[in-house]
Amino acid sequence: MSTDHTGKATPSGGELPPEEKRGTYAAIFGRRDVRAFHSDRIPDDVLARVLTAAHHAPSVGFMQPWDFLLVGSRSTRERVKELSDRERRAAAVFFDEPRRDKYLSMKLEGILDAPLNLCVTCDPTRGGPQVLGRNSIPETDVYSTCLAVQNLWLAARAEGVGVGWVSILRNAELRDILGIPPHVIPVAYLCLGYPEEGFSGRPLLESSGWRKRLPLASLVSYEEWGAQSHNGWAGFSTTLAPQTN
Amino acid sequence: MSTDHTGKATPSGGELPPEEKRGTYAAIFGRRDVRAFHSDRIPDDVLARVLTAAHHAPSVGFMQPWDFLLVGSRSTRERVKELSDRERRAAAVFFDEPRRDKYLSMKLEGILDAPLNLCVTCDPTRGGPQVLGRNSIPETDVYSTCLAVQNLWLAARAEGVGVGWVSILRNAELRDILGIPPHVIPVAYLCLGYPEEGFSGRPLLESSGWRKRLPLASLVSYEEWGAQSHNGWAGFSTTLAPQTN
Repeated sequence: MSTDHTGKATPSGGELPPEEKRGTYAAIFGRRDVRAFHSDRIPDDVLARVLTAAHHAPSVGFMQPWDFLLVGSRSTRERVKELSDRERRAAAVFFDEPRRDKYLSMKLEGILDAPLNLCVTCDPTRGGPQVLGRNSIPETDVYSTCLAVQNLWLAARAEGVGVGWVSILRNAELRDILGIPPHVIPVAYLCLGYPEEGFSGRPLLESSGWRKRLPLASLVSYEEWGAQSHNGWAGFSTTLAPQTN
Repeated sequence: MSTDHTGKATPSGGELPPEEKRGTYAAIFGRRDVRAFHSDRIPDDVLARVLTAAHHAPSVGFMQPWDFLLVGSRSTRERVKELSDRERRAAAVFFDEPRRDKYLSMKLEGILDAPLNLCVTCDPTRGGPQVLGRNSIPETDVYSTCLAVQNLWLAARAEGVGVGWVSILRNAELRDILGIPPHVIPVAYLCLGYPEEGFSGRPLLESSGWRKRLPLASLVSYEEWGAQSHNGWAGFSTTLAPQTN
């Protein structure tokens, strides 16, 4: 039983046992974007659990718009890697020095190192023309697919499997390589495998000095946009500093 | 140590201890879209942990494009509820009977029951004009915000806090109610609180017969789009049935 800010007891019967709660946070805070992998293959039972976790994400209207395309073939991954390299060179053009050198020096993907690549797609036609809850914001199908990706990422972390998201692939070319129909959206191209150097304590872009983690308090507002304090929330913003890890 | 499909040992040093791994899956499989809430307020420390979990989601280029707008005010929530009701009536027009009656009979949101509403937004300008990894697919900012929502949802589940996503609110009107600038995207409008009837075993849309869960095997293809079997993956698709509830 917890107490709220007035000291009143609150219902908490649904919370997980302490060690399981700790496990949820361990996966969340210990998850990393992994870019260097062992070549060892992921056991089938582990992969099955991770995909099942993805499939149990929430989706608008229970639409389940996702598909999972598993890619192990070296030649296919080489084509994707070539596409990724082109995009990387193109992106570099827009950075000024010294950012450009830094950008080009970082290892940002493990397409060929990882034993498995996985393209998670979204089929906007799944569930027919009228999906419950999708009337105002059609993109909720893609949102749902992203939620599946995060489930997968966290389950993989729990299993000790690293996941890296290659976000710079153009969808038209990627569809061509993988045979994906024009109406289906490649949402996430992921590399999966055991991380070569474990899971680091901080994201690479933070530890390398590329960009800082923002203070949580600067991202929270109360009752209306941008209001960083409010009568009804007195004392709350100080409590709101990260308390775990 | 696990073994892969050839019986070879694979590195698994990074996996979580069994009870923590179980906890990760417990949050993933036990998470529900909650629509009926106790009025009890969520303790500040619990809320802080849940928001911190959201803030530790992956983001493209470590952009952290999310903001969290906490709404407790009754009058604001009444305006959002009115908007939701309009959208619900408008959506009903597009369902044929008997789906229309069924749609209108389901309780799909708890905007006024829940003690807390939370709008998670995405600021596409955060991090400047050139965000690492965002050159090919600008929408990866919104994708990142969705990953934060899923972290929040799972952390809340671990804490025994229910979360419901109200997906039918038009963004223009919602911006107006909450004072959100035109360039900022309201990605998720969430209701948070302790669930009135615990966490059900299955999603409402499944248990009510609205729509079935798809078999995972029908969503997985191998090496190229739509290939439901492949030499290199012999025997895998049978293993791929859900193994964890």
